[in-house]
Amino acid sequence: MIVVLKPNTDAEREAQLIEWFKSFGLGVHVSEGQFQTVLGLIGDTSSVDTDLVASLDIVDTVKRVTETFKCANRKFHPEDTIIEVGDLKIGGGNFTVIAGPCSVESEEQIVGIAKAVKAAGANMLRGGAFKPRTSPYDFQGLKAEGIELLKIARQETGLPIVTEIMNASDLPLFEDVDVLQVGARNTQNFDLLKELGHLKKPILLKRGIAGTLKELLMSAEYIMASGNENVILCERGIRSYSDYLRNTLDLSAVPMLHELTHLPVVVDPSHATGLARMVPPMALAATAAGCDGLLIEVHNDPPHALCDGAQSIRPEEFAKLYGKLQAVREAVR
Amino acid sequence: MIVVLKPNTDAEREAQLIEWFKSFGLGVHVSEGQFQTVLGLIGDTSSVDTDLVASLDIVDTVKRVTETFKCANRKFHPEDTIIEVGDLKIGGGNFTVIAGPCSVESEEQIVGIAKAVKAAGANMLRGGAFKPRTSPYDFQGLKAEGIELLKIARQETGLPIVTEIMNASDLPLFEDVDVLQVGARNTQNFDLLKELGHLKKPILLKRGIAGTLKELLMSAEYIMASGNENVILCERGIRSYSDYLRNTLDLSAVPMLHELTHLPVVVDPSHATGLARMVPPMALAATAAGCDGLLIEVHNDPPHALCDGAQSIRPEEFAKLYGKLQAVREAVR
Amino acid sequence: MIVVLKPNTDAEREAQLIEWFKSFGLGVHVSEGQFQTVLGLIGDTSSVDTDLVASLDIVDTVKRVTETFKCANRKFHPEDTIIEVGDLKIGGGNFTVIAGPCSVESEEQIVGIAKAVKAAGANMLRGGAFKPRTSPYDFQGLKAEGIELLKIARQETGLPIVTEIMNASDLPLFEDVDVLQVGARNTQNFDLLKELGHLKKPILLKRGIAGTLKELLMSAEYIMASGNENVILCERGIRSYSDYLRNTLDLSAVPMLHELTHLPVVVDPSHATGLARMVPPMALAATAAGCDGLLIEVHNDPPHALCDGAQSIRPEEFAKLYGKLQAVREAVR
Amino acid sequence: MIVVLKPNTDAEREAQLIEWFKSFGLGVHVSEGQFQTVLGLIGDTSSVDTDLVASLDIVDTVKRVTETFKCANRKFHPEDTIIEVGDLKIGGGNFTVIAGPCSVESEEQIVGIAKAVKAAGANMLRGGAFKPRTSPYDFQGLKAEGIELLKIARQETGLPIVTEIMNASDLPLFEDVDVLQVGARNTQNFDLLKELGHLKKPILLKRGIAGTLKELLMSAEYIMASGNENVILCERGIRSYSDYLRNTLDLSAVPMLHELTHLPVVVDPSHATGLARMVPPMALAATAAGCDGLLIEVHNDPPHALCDGAQSIRPEEFAKLYGKLQAVREAVR
Repeated sequence: MIVVLKPNTDAEREAQLIEWFKSFGLGVHVSEGQFQTVLGLIGDTSSVDTDLVASLDIVDTVKRVTETFKCANRKFHPEDTIIEVGDLKIGGGNFTVIAGPCSVESEEQIVGIAKAVKAAGANMLRGGAFKPRTSPYDFQGLKAEGIELLKIARQETGLPIVTEIMNASDLPLFEDVDVLQVGARNTQNFDLLKELGHLKKPILLKRGIAGTLKELLMSAEYIMASGNENVILCERGIRSYSDYLRNTLDLSAVPMLHELTHLPVVVDPSHATGLARMVPPMALAATAAGCDGLLIEVHNDPPHALCDGAQSIRPEEFAKLYGKLQAVREAVR
Repeated sequence: MIVVLKPNTDAEREAQLIEWFKSFGLGVHVSEGQFQTVLGLIGDTSSVDTDLVASLDIVDTVKRVTETFKCANRKFHPEDTIIEVGDLKIGGGNFTVIAGPCSVESEEQIVGIAKAVKAAGANMLRGGAFKPRTSPYDFQGLKAEGIELLKIARQETGLPIVTEIMNASDLPLFEDVDVLQVGARNTQNFDLLKELGHLKKPILLKRGIAGTLKELLMSAEYIMASGNENVILCERGIRSYSDYLRNTLDLSAVPMLHELTHLPVVVDPSHATGLARMVPPMALAATAAGCDGLLIEVHNDPPHALCDGAQSIRPEEFAKLYGKLQAVREAVR
Repeated sequence: MIVVLKPNTDAEREAQLIEWFKSFGLGVHVSEGQFQTVLGLIGDTSSVDTDLVASLDIVDTVKRVTETFKCANRKFHPEDTIIEVGDLKIGGGNFTVIAGPCSVESEEQIVGIAKAVKAAGANMLRGGAFKPRTSPYDFQGLKAEGIELLKIARQETGLPIVTEIMNASDLPLFEDVDVLQVGARNTQNFDLLKELGHLKKPILLKRGIAGTLKELLMSAEYIMASGNENVILCERGIRSYSDYLRNTLDLSAVPMLHELTHLPVVVDPSHATGLARMVPPMALAATAAGCDGLLIEVHNDPPHALCDGAQSIRPEEFAKLYGKLQAVREAVR
Repeated sequence: MIVVLKPNTDAEREAQLIEWFKSFGLGVHVSEGQFQTVLGLIGDTSSVDTDLVASLDIVDTVKRVTETFKCANRKFHPEDTIIEVGDLKIGGGNFTVIAGPCSVESEEQIVGIAKAVKAAGANMLRGGAFKPRTSPYDFQGLKAEGIELLKIARQETGLPIVTEIMNASDLPLFEDVDVLQVGARNTQNFDLLKELGHLKKPILLKRGIAGTLKELLMSAEYIMASGNENVILCERGIRSYSDYLRNTLDLSAVPMLHELTHLPVVVDPSHATGLARMVPPMALAATAAGCDGLLIEVHNDPPHALCDGAQSIRPEEFAKLYGKLQAVREAVR
């Protein structure tokens, strides 16, 4: 940690601060600049609160040198993590397309869509059983029944299933789910993250609604530090002053996350835009940006979907898109 | 709901759309404009998904006329809600100052601070027992023990206590807590909100890190629709591109929320700025803007606080501030 | 324009409001809903201030039905605009790659880079002569001399040139420039836009630093309404709470703008990310999203560039990227 | 400047980087940490591009120690700047209320409002003659005639006048104006700022629509470095995801700017909220936060104002507010 003191700091107060740092077991390297003195702290500074140091009146600025995320950090783990779901491999050069409806509505619906997306090339089936909705008056999902229907669809198609968990107390219901999703509103539900850290199952962790990349990585760190290293990161659009679309899809997060972490990074163009006709161009763009996979909402009858019909594409559109995705993958290799 | 069709919409498709709306049991009022046709939907449109309608290719724009929040809406409940905590009244012209440390650290610490803030005029004691921290490596709170220490401080001072709950499964520990706080990272933890709706206790609900006012009101709606009308809203700063402070305190939320809802609105200038010396001016500003109370972090020894020392003021600063707050209250009456 | 009145509005005040609208020469269509009355205004409402109407105490909400941009609106001009620069065509299915250094520094530098990017496939040369810099102490460009050097580079390579204008009083210096660029800080410099509207030259108009799409289109409208229909829109990243990159490149603006307007849309991945190694993936992503062209900073010696060396790629990287761009174009067709 | 190298950096490349820094005439102080090496640059680093250094592949992070703004920096100029406009003093503990209509519309209007605000206590008259409007179809101001009418109002009341300049070529028209305003859309119109730096007149500089505090200070620096030290900073609301108000008034900017700079800081609650009934609470809040003055839109007939009627309060509301402002000033002293 680097601590820059204000110009003309009183020598006695500087000495007190240095003593205080030493009380944490840190070495302190003092460097006198032309105008300002710089302290370099040597040792494990993770217990020093940078905000507090920055707020001291003799301190000008503070800079943490070592990143606070460790398990997720590519510096300490240069190789790509590859996550296995049965035979399916995610990350490390593999490309995974996860498709399905926003909500599971009925056996007919979910099995029908599962068959259609499988035929088109999808590698995994998504479908919401527990639905976080802004309004308490909106459809909240089929819950346990929805998970049972997903399993039937898996049995019919062989596609592994991914579905969102909102509450650690529901964990027993998810025992036979392949990948658990943490939604954007729960990215910093730390108690939930810790519980998921005790599993061995892959966790698909979405970026918060207005989350920074560091926050996303720290949330991954919660899961990993608790023992589960199988984390897939998901960019799903961030809140901005966008006037025509729901969110702003931040595709530069893809190469930036690949630089910062070894975890796989997938993109959800459906929630990011909220508009079906924007999904194909943004799915193609995400692929060109180098993501490890996509999460795409597909519904056989969007106008009658119980949730997010506006952003769902039809199976035939998905099939057409799938072919182009492969061509883009080839083009950017 | 008002639906504006695109210019030159095909008459047959328009007729289909009207039929579709009628299938929801709605009346449809058609108004032909100079360039575009406008449909007015009459009846309960809460089951119609505006995003879906907006995405239809013959639709230009959609506007929901009736707000989706009902219990929290001042239109249907014009009088201010007054929430009672023992003898203490919150809202409806009362001014409530809640003070205390970010984290409960020891009996000596919490009792000492409680006595100091009580002497200075505070009406309620705050203190974190369960702490949501961005990093898994940071201090996570004394948990159950912290709540016990808060109760001791209450016994010593008579101040009611408010503390944060992160997980519904911890509810038994909070049985004897006066006010339960929902933090900014859990504002849209809908399962938690529903559980809190089954209590009778007042809930202090913080605005999300990048939350809109509508989202805050819809989260209050989750609690209220489940049966608990005792909700206190809290503005605590929103994320922006602010370059010198942690968040941007949105004080215009105070008069705007007072217009939209009958619930009390308090302000937390400590988390909003993250910097102790910014707390007094922003506390005064919040009071001048008409808030119903404040949540202020006070610590007897900020440099050694286990959490958020940077934003805590000392008891003597709090006492000085308290006098000015009363003067501002008087000035703006 | 649709005006929704508050519930239980006094009949007399409603009548006054209707009279007031009629004083603008508008027809008013009154529709009584279950809870609220809706007024539909018929005729040219462009002189009615929606903010003012919304602020009236009997008014609940206001919605403008007709977009305020006309010249740029695809509704009134469904065909893509194709802009011609000599033999070069921009928009309408053509793909234009504009490359060059952030700043023109010397004849050797600009001619060298021009030859290199031409050899690699670029269609136009960019280079800053007038540089808007956040700090008055930073290099402000070679100004008139820079434009002369660009012309030499054009003569040597045949590439048309694009360079930024900051001030209408400099227009005489730009007489022989092919395309004039308006930077992100001048997107709402309306006096400058009006002046550019009196030219016939193509204008490359960048989106504001935190600009909405509507603001961008209204700025294009300033140029077009003054008589110059040759406007190229440019997405260049918007400000957000991004923590590792300078801006957030909003690629969903590409398909959304294509829907709203007939003008060509190009993307600048260099300014958007501020980091050279992010430029290739984001250029590929922009192409996959369907943009009509790219603006890419290329410098032969980035560490010694006088401006923005951090975001410039080398000619050999550009050449490699160019091939992939064509492959992606092919893949998404 | 502090440069932190990546772990395990090659010694030769480190030596090259150090040589490169020395080529700028800088001293380099090398400090070996437990994991990473830190370079401290000593001397004038203003010509070193931090973005470029940060982008080098052996560099982890860069931190500039010395602020890039000098003239505006309180570190080098601890005393408050007091700006004089005739007998009126702005800053340094004085409180200045600037009131008037958004646009000058007629002699009767501006003189009438000027008399009313003067009677209520205002110290200066504002009124727009040149109006930056998002749409080219909106009223653009009376221009030269508007300035003449302001002068008449000044003659009638003795109030100094402040009005916005959009274009340096209009400067001759502003010769007899007391204070020139730079609007939010021109905060980074650097050519205009440089021209204003050649005047002696006070400049009221608004923060950009999504401007950081540093950008505001750097824009002030443009004016000051050109020779004009009479700069008044103005917070006027920033763009956010606010859903009910036009902008988010960032009142924490007031104490933060007071810490960073010696220049006076005023607040414009009218543009910040866009809604007349929000102006009084936010004006009071701004005063409690410690601002040096206010800019308030007052119109005698808001529903017929040619511009921004929605945010204008009436003279009688202004008079009532003025009394409360003084009371708040007293309360927070």
